[in-house]
Amino acid sequence: MQPSLADSVRLTEDCVLVLDRRRFPFERHWVRCGTAREVAQAITDMVTQSSGPYFAALYGMVLAAREVAGTPDARQRLAEAGDLLIASRATNNHLGKAVRAVLDEVDAGDADLVTAAERGAKLGADRYHARSRALGEHSAALLPDGARVLTHCWADAYLIETVNAVRRLGHDISFVCTETRPYLQGARLTAETLGEMGVDTTLITDGMGAAVLASGEVTALLTAADRVTMDGHVVNKVGTLGLAVAAHAFGVPFHAQVQAPDPAAPTAADVPIEHRDGDEVLHTLGVRTASHRVRGHYPAFDVTPPRFVRTVVTDRGAFAPGALADYHRGAERGSGPAR
Amino acid sequence: MQPSLADSVRLTEDCVLVLDRRRFPFERHWVRCGTAREVAQAITDMVTQSSGPYFAALYGMVLAAREVAGTPDARQRLAEAGDLLIASRATNNHLGKAVRAVLDEVDAGDADLVTAAERGAKLGADRYHARSRALGEHSAALLPDGARVLTHCWADAYLIETVNAVRRLGHDISFVCTETRPYLQGARLTAETLGEMGVDTTLITDGMGAAVLASGEVTALLTAADRVTMDGHVVNKVGTLGLAVAAHAFGVPFHAQVQAPDPAAPTAADVPIEHRDGDEVLHTLGVRTASHRVRGHYPAFDVTPPRFVRTVVTDRGAFAPGALADYHRGAERGSGPAR
Repeated sequence: MQPSLADSVRLTEDCVLVLDRRRFPFERHWVRCGTAREVAQAITDMVTQSSGPYFAALYGMVLAAREVAGTPDARQRLAEAGDLLIASRATNNHLGKAVRAVLDEVDAGDADLVTAAERGAKLGADRYHARSRALGEHSAALLPDGARVLTHCWADAYLIETVNAVRRLGHDISFVCTETRPYLQGARLTAETLGEMGVDTTLITDGMGAAVLASGEVTALLTAADRVTMDGHVVNKVGTLGLAVAAHAFGVPFHAQVQAPDPAAPTAADVPIEHRDGDEVLHTLGVRTASHRVRGHYPAFDVTPPRFVRTVVTDRGAFAPGALADYHRGAERGSGPAR
Repeated sequence: MQPSLADSVRLTEDCVLVLDRRRFPFERHWVRCGTAREVAQAITDMVTQSSGPYFAALYGMVLAAREVAGTPDARQRLAEAGDLLIASRATNNHLGKAVRAVLDEVDAGDADLVTAAERGAKLGADRYHARSRALGEHSAALLPDGARVLTHCWADAYLIETVNAVRRLGHDISFVCTETRPYLQGARLTAETLGEMGVDTTLITDGMGAAVLASGEVTALLTAADRVTMDGHVVNKVGTLGLAVAAHAFGVPFHAQVQAPDPAAPTAADVPIEHRDGDEVLHTLGVRTASHRVRGHYPAFDVTPPRFVRTVVTDRGAFAPGALADYHRGAERGSGPAR
């Protein structure tokens, strides 16, 4: 079964529909966005996250193209809609890529505005799916048949494509997921999606990972990465570091998934770590979990040094964390999918 | 200020009052137990935990003594009440110690039943407080002035006495507490108690410990232990292992607090690990956190090998995890408080 979150941002004839990940899986509620501005607001409001904003921005650009087509300053107004979408979440460079994917097709100039925008959005979506599928295949190749995999937070398309690739190999796989406080992406998104896909899935709290790793019951630790620096530091949802250190201590390989290491980030010092409002730690699904006497602290990401990372899995294959320069050398030689 | 949980099981003229730790700190609700049977039920129902059942059993025995005094088979009926209290929670050997503390005074035979039982209960309580105070002093001696300490779950009297001892030294201390899912003992009991004591306290989720340890912002990891084996394995609330491994990786000392290493447990294989109902992982304060598609897994404790432990702090001082036999040799030589 195709999981709900694999197709949770949709372009229709007159709007973009965005499945509300804040309520998922307890409610299947779709937010209807009739304009690029409403799409931007939905992204800002965290209706969707992870890969969701990328698709929302692609389709938001199509809405904008439909709205401005035939006006004298259509190209200018489309670019302004793009700026609005890019500004909807500050740290996500997916958004810029989505906007450029549409504008590049428009600027190619061989079709009317709406047709070009729709083609740009489709190309952008297809490219993302192709790279995720390639990444999934390279990930599956690292996992033995019958692998039991510990994962943290929500790896989105990378996770789904890894499971698909494992199945194409005819192999079996099962997962242990951390719940990933405070927003419970592991409990609400990862465990649910794996369950929908019919994968054997067990949920643990964030403190139980080391016990599971020490017990010998998992084959690998596998997570997405928000960013991987060129020297092999893995930046991901807070909690990844503790799991990686425990995996290393107990001889379990840690594979981090990212489309590509970031040439703009030579090392960890180049990646600012977002600290969110400490109050977010003091609630679960809106229920207060500590008294007003208590102050929270919320570093949203952590940085795993390369000595705790076995491989960085990309759309061009698996790399040792010390050999990531080879990823971009591959691009210069023209190998691997075009970026 | 004396924190609420330091005096949360009380003997009155006609009952035992037990502060309900399941609702604390959101409600300050006291459960009234008029008989030893009601005390046993409150322990079974987890109204109190950690050191609470020890005091509840001491005072439950006093209620029993008052009830049976003057009957022909009073001593027999008192022992039966003790059996009932001991059976109220299977794995807690505190309960047996509490019952014996009262029966020993009764059997000394130099007072009427009720007076002897009350004296036994007071001796048992005083002994627990004295040992906790000694343990707190030995813990404080390990912490530099201005220490910032990461702790996990709820160390109860050990935590309170450590803070008291630090203050007697005129030193400053602050804490970072993990929330300790699924029951949030860290958020509800530890952070609240430290807040009541006026200690600077910050709450994090269970996945953030490694990031805090790697950042250099904490001086030590300090937790209680449910059990320490003679060869230095620390058995404590699940989550301790991951923090200990991360502390070791980033050069932060881990001090585990226990009154005494357990001579009945030469090594970790001698300590059965309780696995609780996986459904408990799928809720927070009664709110469902994953869908019914998802299965939970709940190892309630984990085992930290001695290589990740800097010191085991007892009522007789701090020991390297490889030197715990010295604790009981001290007893044979007659040093340290009598047990």
